[in-house]
Amino acid sequence: MGEFELIERYFRSGAGTRDASAGGGSGVLLGIGDDAAVLELPVDRQLVAAIDTLVEGRHFPAGCAPQSIGHRALAVNLSDLAAMGADPRWFLLALTLPAAQAGFLEAFSEGLFALAREHAIALVGGDTTAGPLAMSVQVLGSVPAGEAITRSGGRAGDLLFVSGTPGDAAAGLRHLMQAQPVEGADADVLDPDLQHLMNRFLYPEPRVALGRALRGIASACIDVSDGLAADAGRLAAASGCGASIDAAQLPLSPAMLACHDAAAATQFSLGGGDDYELCFTVPPAKRAQLEARLANVKCRVTCIGRLVEKLSLQITRDGKPVDCDTRGYDHFSSAG
Amino acid sequence: MGEFELIERYFRSGAGTRDASAGGGSGVLLGIGDDAAVLELPVDRQLVAAIDTLVEGRHFPAGCAPQSIGHRALAVNLSDLAAMGADPRWFLLALTLPAAQAGFLEAFSEGLFALAREHAIALVGGDTTAGPLAMSVQVLGSVPAGEAITRSGGRAGDLLFVSGTPGDAAAGLRHLMQAQPVEGADADVLDPDLQHLMNRFLYPEPRVALGRALRGIASACIDVSDGLAADAGRLAAASGCGASIDAAQLPLSPAMLACHDAAAATQFSLGGGDDYELCFTVPPAKRAQLEARLANVKCRVTCIGRLVEKLSLQITRDGKPVDCDTRGYDHFSSAG
Repeated sequence: MGEFELIERYFRSGAGTRDASAGGGSGVLLGIGDDAAVLELPVDRQLVAAIDTLVEGRHFPAGCAPQSIGHRALAVNLSDLAAMGADPRWFLLALTLPAAQAGFLEAFSEGLFALAREHAIALVGGDTTAGPLAMSVQVLGSVPAGEAITRSGGRAGDLLFVSGTPGDAAAGLRHLMQAQPVEGADADVLDPDLQHLMNRFLYPEPRVALGRALRGIASACIDVSDGLAADAGRLAAASGCGASIDAAQLPLSPAMLACHDAAAATQFSLGGGDDYELCFTVPPAKRAQLEARLANVKCRVTCIGRLVEKLSLQITRDGKPVDCDTRGYDHFSSAG
Repeated sequence: MGEFELIERYFRSGAGTRDASAGGGSGVLLGIGDDAAVLELPVDRQLVAAIDTLVEGRHFPAGCAPQSIGHRALAVNLSDLAAMGADPRWFLLALTLPAAQAGFLEAFSEGLFALAREHAIALVGGDTTAGPLAMSVQVLGSVPAGEAITRSGGRAGDLLFVSGTPGDAAAGLRHLMQAQPVEGADADVLDPDLQHLMNRFLYPEPRVALGRALRGIASACIDVSDGLAADAGRLAAASGCGASIDAAQLPLSPAMLACHDAAAATQFSLGGGDDYELCFTVPPAKRAQLEARLANVKCRVTCIGRLVEKLSLQITRDGKPVDCDTRGYDHFSSAG
């Protein structure tokens, strides 16, 4: 199968204005098939753009389910838009593949377009090339003018929140790596708690609806991709503050508590990456407004601390410091 | 050097609104450093978006000068926007590197930002990750509403033009591959014609000013990335036409003619990729208007044929068919 047939077969059907079932495509004047896409942004909206790459063996283990790879390639980018409070609209895909394998492409595009349909966004351009398995998705969205939520708007005293139950994805990835070698194992026999954790890695849910609900309420927001402590620290630093986190308030999932002791669960929660939850701050005066908005968003949100004036990240339990990795993931410093 | 220090050191200085010397940055409300960029598109403008990937050993030879890699990563994307008649505004970079080497990054970013400054566009976001050397650039631009030039607007009878002297880049790449192994060779002693051809591969000039000048005049346009014959064939097919090319009219550079006989030069011209020239059609009634516009664009433009009703690509010289590869480059069908 050649490059053009490949594009036609797996990516054009869910793309641009052609497929109403994709739900997206509004504002697409010209989609896939020309040198570039032509898109229409409504008046009074600002454009929001992000790009993220996944590389095999780095962002996902070799042999990972292609559906998951397709899902995650888009999810990690949608998460960036969610953190800005933006509405995703369109995306472009640069896909590098060792070979044009129909099985891989079918499952990959299935995972990709299932998530695209869920968020009603359209694939409007891309590029396929031969090489080591990797992909960059570039996502475009919009916010009402002036309403983007940045990392830098927090103030000392603001309450610090996190969505979901961070740590699950990192725990799931660890189990996935341990489970990988069992070829042909029946997924049905897997412990449901382990399966839940693995799915949090394989199929993270970008918090787009939450991000949208936070417009005008959150003073700052970041997505938790590198670990809660590291990303909360980045939000605080960008806001010119420190942060204080009460480890006793960290939301831990039943699956996490079933598979790990409290100490390990805390470490996963604070240091584990790949969750794509939102960490955000809200001025105390807006807390009631936040609760009202959350009634319409199916997503657990937990207050875990606050921003403080002292420029450091303090994590405590019963007043005593808790050790954890606050550096986050660094592609060029970590081993591997 | 860690990922964040790396971004800060080599990519932030030329980025977003921070560096006036970059010339770009207009419309950048939030640049590098948050989860996503926030950008402002003027009213009455449509957004134009493209993404292209370069992979080492595939789009450029291993050991290629990092300045050239940086230049080409952006140039191939600017060329896509040029083909739409769009004004480039912003770009995002997803860079995958085996290691954070200061020497490589300094030269790569120099090549990248030199071209960005030339076109007054700003880097507004990106992602760096460890892995086999590859990069995706995503470029964003705009056109006045309704003025984007597509591949599909050509009609039988329209004149077919090409800019520059296609074939030079492919000839240059061949010489470059042959010259590669000579470690430490003095570039000054290289034949200036060979050097010219190599530079056409290493530092292609995206025809942004030409694309802009073609708005309202060209009926269709495509950039020549895969070979003139293949790309002219694609333009014709998208326009529901065939094309007739007179090989005697192909523009050949003095450097090409100094290094290759006429037959080889014709093959390079028709079949060689990587030129990033524009191939476009103009209704005969608008030819005078085209000439007038071209007076302000420093770029040679040659009429090489016309669109025809018969759905095929005919290449002739003195009325006899000329054989050439009209398929273009296919990442998944070609050897290597």
